[in-house]
Amino acid sequence: MLRDPSAKYRPFPQVDLPDRQWPSRTITRPPRWLSTDMRDGNQALIDPMDSEKKQRFFDLLVKVGVKEIEIGFPSAGQTEFDYISGLVRSGAIPDDVTVQVLTQSRRDLIERSFESLEGAPKAIVHLYNAVSPAWRKIVFGMSRDEIRGIAVEGAKILRDEAAKRPGTAWHFEYSPETFSTAELDFSIEVCAAVMDVLRPTADKPIILNLPATVEAATPNIYADQIEYFGRNIPNRDAVVISLHTHNDRGTGIAATELGLLAGADRVEGCLFGNGERTGNVDLVTVALNMYTQGIDPGLDFSDIDEVIRTVEYCNALPVHPRHPYAGELVFTAFSGSHQDAIKKGFASQEARNDELWEVPYLPIDPADLGRSYEAVIRVNSQSGKGGVAWVLEQDKGLKLPKRLQADFSRHVQALADATSRELNAGDIWTAFEGAYLPNGSDRFALVDYLESHAAGTRQFIGRIAVDGEEQSLSGRGNGLISSVLDALGAAGVPLDVIDYSEHAIGHGSDAQAAAYLECRTGDGRTVFGVGIDSDVATATVRAALGAANRA
Amino acid sequence: MLRDPSAKYRPFPQVDLPDRQWPSRTITRPPRWLSTDMRDGNQALIDPMDSEKKQRFFDLLVKVGVKEIEIGFPSAGQTEFDYISGLVRSGAIPDDVTVQVLTQSRRDLIERSFESLEGAPKAIVHLYNAVSPAWRKIVFGMSRDEIRGIAVEGAKILRDEAAKRPGTAWHFEYSPETFSTAELDFSIEVCAAVMDVLRPTADKPIILNLPATVEAATPNIYADQIEYFGRNIPNRDAVVISLHTHNDRGTGIAATELGLLAGADRVEGCLFGNGERTGNVDLVTVALNMYTQGIDPGLDFSDIDEVIRTVEYCNALPVHPRHPYAGELVFTAFSGSHQDAIKKGFASQEARNDELWEVPYLPIDPADLGRSYEAVIRVNSQSGKGGVAWVLEQDKGLKLPKRLQADFSRHVQALADATSRELNAGDIWTAFEGAYLPNGSDRFALVDYLESHAAGTRQFIGRIAVDGEEQSLSGRGNGLISSVLDALGAAGVPLDVIDYSEHAIGHGSDAQAAAYLECRTGDGRTVFGVGIDSDVATATVRAALGAANRA
Repeated sequence: MLRDPSAKYRPFPQVDLPDRQWPSRTITRPPRWLSTDMRDGNQALIDPMDSEKKQRFFDLLVKVGVKEIEIGFPSAGQTEFDYISGLVRSGAIPDDVTVQVLTQSRRDLIERSFESLEGAPKAIVHLYNAVSPAWRKIVFGMSRDEIRGIAVEGAKILRDEAAKRPGTAWHFEYSPETFSTAELDFSIEVCAAVMDVLRPTADKPIILNLPATVEAATPNIYADQIEYFGRNIPNRDAVVISLHTHNDRGTGIAATELGLLAGADRVEGCLFGNGERTGNVDLVTVALNMYTQGIDPGLDFSDIDEVIRTVEYCNALPVHPRHPYAGELVFTAFSGSHQDAIKKGFASQEARNDELWEVPYLPIDPADLGRSYEAVIRVNSQSGKGGVAWVLEQDKGLKLPKRLQADFSRHVQALADATSRELNAGDIWTAFEGAYLPNGSDRFALVDYLESHAAGTRQFIGRIAVDGEEQSLSGRGNGLISSVLDALGAAGVPLDVIDYSEHAIGHGSDAQAAAYLECRTGDGRTVFGVGIDSDVATATVRAALGAANRA
Repeated sequence: MLRDPSAKYRPFPQVDLPDRQWPSRTITRPPRWLSTDMRDGNQALIDPMDSEKKQRFFDLLVKVGVKEIEIGFPSAGQTEFDYISGLVRSGAIPDDVTVQVLTQSRRDLIERSFESLEGAPKAIVHLYNAVSPAWRKIVFGMSRDEIRGIAVEGAKILRDEAAKRPGTAWHFEYSPETFSTAELDFSIEVCAAVMDVLRPTADKPIILNLPATVEAATPNIYADQIEYFGRNIPNRDAVVISLHTHNDRGTGIAATELGLLAGADRVEGCLFGNGERTGNVDLVTVALNMYTQGIDPGLDFSDIDEVIRTVEYCNALPVHPRHPYAGELVFTAFSGSHQDAIKKGFASQEARNDELWEVPYLPIDPADLGRSYEAVIRVNSQSGKGGVAWVLEQDKGLKLPKRLQADFSRHVQALADATSRELNAGDIWTAFEGAYLPNGSDRFALVDYLESHAAGTRQFIGRIAVDGEEQSLSGRGNGLISSVLDALGAAGVPLDVIDYSEHAIGHGSDAQAAAYLECRTGDGRTVFGVGIDSDVATATVRAALGAANRA
């Protein structure tokens, strides 16, 4: 890499638009969406889709709710042509879906494109030619006039071919390719010349699609370009301004969003951002970004996993684990403070009376995407008590009191430090059992017990295995816990109660009870006992014995 | 998914900043870079890095040129503490690198953090607490005053712990976590209160790090927030404004770039955008975006493949094939028009006299990242003649004339249509051999020949196997080609020359010659012949026989 790249690369120039309006606007409605997965996406695949994959992709797009679908480049090859004409003639295109095909501005290619659409009730023919100075100079060796001439010539052929086929409702799209790196006034001049030929009206507008063919500047510049274009294109009412951003600088989504603020009406892109090189803008993210602002995008990603499966199958490219909304890790929190906050957020969400979504670290309810939150929190050496508690609650129904969470988190921390890998729910349960539940090496093990209640006093008579030898231990108190602790005190283990709680696990006849007892020992330490039993009283007795075993 | 999400989600409010300046600015210099790969990145990994991986990552960051590295969260666990204190005491931290550790605002955690840095010549201690209303309400149940109190209390402990350890040059960073979703004036109030304790100066400024902990709005809003903050924070000269964006809406890079326009001085992020959920901002892309604008980012990615290898090893997460600059597909063009334009761009680049990079569809020279362009163009049914020609030129040194490119592309197209997969260089060469080079079923096969030149006339006497039977064919003309064609005409294959070209393949004694002959047949068709031989004349003869075989 050059240490000083200034000789090789130049900064992108500003647009002269000091009174730009877009930074003060917000997005209030969804755009028209055009999926170019089957064209711009497909042409960028290592192995282009065969017709079975194309059909699956088309069906997915329809299911998601995309109403404009660019289904290919008919003049690119026989396979492509056959698929397009087959789809059109199959009658499988829903009435509310309009298909679109792309063509370069050459008579034979345009004619072939119209042929492929023979029989369609309606269709968009999308004409393009590159207009930027680099392309004019390097690729075509043409003047501005010649470049404009190519566009105008193509528009005339579009007009004439359409006129020959009155059975189809034809719509036109023109892309000044490389718009974002072209002189704005020249792009407007070429688009206006195309409009002079095609004579769009407010009722039958032309789509002018303004590609950031290669993303070359910060996204605010693209927004300036779009606002400038919208202000200066003649007959704005007869124009649908369409955005087509790529992601060479990783800001394709931002460019589209700022472009919408700048007045665009339509967005072209691909699911999960497939497309040439770094990809087209990702329609899933743009749509769900709107969704999380309370705007119905008109696209349905309520089963995001199905969308992922189909797209990964058709494209043979992965969705990244950190992809917004769709990545496998995006609803996962590993760090303790995040886990703790999310847990509180869910609890608060449940307690509140309104629908409003407000859970820390989760900009969208995973359930809205058909995802569950169960597997969200994993535990490793970075995790804190909240995450561990969450796993136990999800997995075992245990609602650990706060100080028990803290106590247990130390056990988990030590285990995680020792193993240096993610702990799963099974690891955590094993650690919990080892820390708090009865095991063979316990000093006190419950065999059976009687308890009676008379004149404000409870009596506890327990058959307890003490160091493996069954004994009768009895005690009195004003309640069950105090009577058990009295018996344990008599056996040489004095304990005072600091805190106690108990809750049901599950519902109905299968329900169990979990009891948590926090005690202070004779030498001032804090110990916890946990008891789980189908009987609420027995759970409490077990918790008390558990505390004694830890004392 | 809700069809109407407006009850569940609310639009993010605008910042009242009608005289915002950032949209008219450009980025002119790199920020200070802080890598939080070993902290925010590490805590978001399925399996956090062990000490061997942490050391590799640290070494990579140093090699790339990162001067500020957040090496962990010392109070998060014993493993973490041990690694940090071990690194600090190892003396392996270069003099120009400053390490940073993160701590929550609690006395024991802060003390532990200072302990971990014992012996460092200099270090940054990074204090944070969340300030937004959702966190105040849901996570902490605290008032504004209490939240500010936590920050101030932490700052006092920082001050006092630092004072106890005068052997280290201490720097402080404070993050009002969840800044982007907090009330701006409250964030400023908390930061100002922290500054009142720590008393930064222009010579020893405080880093105020403003996280988009969860990305919640379009990136222009974040830029507004940063500009507002910069205008209103007291004692601006004593403050380093630091950005810390996440990518929940896929616009983390844009938010950072617009935040820099808005006046920030420093950027926190991770290589390739690792980090909680959707990740932190990707430092590689932000830096290379600057690079392609002619700004030296101060980070060296000239061996991007090594960076990818190390990060993928340490994080156990893939870099996506479409990741800007680093993805395996981003310097690949599949479509014919793209391939053609790139080919012309390289040719034009070579012909020009300046260094300026201007190749269509390639915003950066792959060589600047240590990548070669050889494997860039693959061929499938979407590819055109430019791509095929490029592969033959790269792989075999053949520079096909334009019409031969077009002719050959039809063969490749048919093959690609038939196989429905990407064709590799070997496939293309096989197709080329089959189409143009001698094979066993040829009508005319060269055995040997004599040619003489006298009195302006050439005579060709060839020993030619015609349909497998050796014959002597002779002809005359004003040159070699015409004499061979004369001989072929006498044998019943009349051909007229349309075009001819020849070039060397390679250099020196191993060089070969490639001859291309375009002819018109007696019935008006165009045929091509290609000859390759170590002798330039023999290559021509072979080309003529090749044309006859195709006639």
